[in-house]
Amino acid sequence: MAQQERAIRTREKILLAAAEVFDEVGYDAATISEILKRSGVTKGALYFHFSSKEELAQAVLANQLASVPPAPPQDLVLQQGLDETLVLAYLLAKGDPMVRGSVRLTVDQVAPGDGLDRRIPMQGWIDHNADLLGKAKQSGEVLPHIDVDAVARMFVGAFTGVQMLSKIMTGHADMTDRVMDLYRHLMTSIAVPAVLVRLDFSPDRGERVYEAALKLREAGQPASV
Amino acid sequence: MAQQERAIRTREKILLAAAEVFDEVGYDAATISEILKRSGVTKGALYFHFSSKEELAQAVLANQLASVPPAPPQDLVLQQGLDETLVLAYLLAKGDPMVRGSVRLTVDQVAPGDGLDRRIPMQGWIDHNADLLGKAKQSGEVLPHIDVDAVARMFVGAFTGVQMLSKIMTGHADMTDRVMDLYRHLMTSIAVPAVLVRLDFSPDRGERVYEAALKLREAGQPASV
Repeated sequence: MAQQERAIRTREKILLAAAEVFDEVGYDAATISEILKRSGVTKGALYFHFSSKEELAQAVLANQLASVPPAPPQDLVLQQGLDETLVLAYLLAKGDPMVRGSVRLTVDQVAPGDGLDRRIPMQGWIDHNADLLGKAKQSGEVLPHIDVDAVARMFVGAFTGVQMLSKIMTGHADMTDRVMDLYRHLMTSIAVPAVLVRLDFSPDRGERVYEAALKLREAGQPASV
Repeated sequence: MAQQERAIRTREKILLAAAEVFDEVGYDAATISEILKRSGVTKGALYFHFSSKEELAQAVLANQLASVPPAPPQDLVLQQGLDETLVLAYLLAKGDPMVRGSVRLTVDQVAPGDGLDRRIPMQGWIDHNADLLGKAKQSGEVLPHIDVDAVARMFVGAFTGVQMLSKIMTGHADMTDRVMDLYRHLMTSIAVPAVLVRLDFSPDRGERVYEAALKLREAGQPASV
């Protein structure tokens, strides 16, 4: 058991180091030797867990959703969705290496032959959003004509671009404002008015939710890597 | 005069070849010698116009807006905005090298020291959208509380991400549907109802507008490169 735990922790260390390196230099320029140096594990340990740079990148991509700590539960499903997105926005803006490395792998265009499947994290986010919107629809929060799958895609696509634009223009400094803007407008077009008026878009909500999510994670739900 | 025209055409050829190479392999892997080969111009001619790969990339970025042919004018300013975006979506989906190369340069994260200013095309799109939304507001098409600058940023960011997600998930095959979805939702949150109901979101509008824009360009407005 102790041995298994040690193996899990070693794997986490390697993945974190890999995400850092992918975030800093991108997939092409990343090297196993740099990842080794960062992680502080032995070459044997690294190759026990991952046979190649590609496998490492694929694991970082697969870990994208799991590396975002859950936001505290909310009565309104749409508030829950907004809160989760705010936590992700904060992690990106604050420079969380696991999230940033994985997002860079997802959005960078690399040589077609690199074999990385960027659809995995994207499909994960789309499914997660579709699931959430489906629940919101069941509980009557969402307008009846809404196509849950199409809207889930739209949220994921729009968020991806808004965070990228915030990074290009301000180094993520205006990230929370931009995400709030986006959600205020998108929610207007999908939520029933009685729910819309109850959603909390206050400017400090992002920080509050982010800190609550970190506390929740520390308290008892170690992030699975 | 003839000499000046020749110089302009040579510059165009070089920029187009550069955009193709940037689209295919990205900034880092692109080489001047590959761009030379594609363009068919002499080394002397290339260096007369551009002193380095960085200067070439910056020119491709600066040319991003100008390389999209204008859509035919419309009575409703918001329809004009939607149509322009559909033309851009079609150019990306059909693989227009100038647009694709320039968009890849904008969204790829590259080494921080590469000196490319990705804010230039993004700011160009934001300004263009803000201008358009300002006109729409003046003519009463937009709800009075709308913050034109914030909404312009949101449109540019959301479009960037939606086109990227369409590329990752379907190789741009569902691009027009996704852009229509996005605009239908965003317009719902900014347009006055009497305008909203007049906007044309029909599935075949994208293709019609794209072809009309190409004809307009052929007819008399050579794309300035």
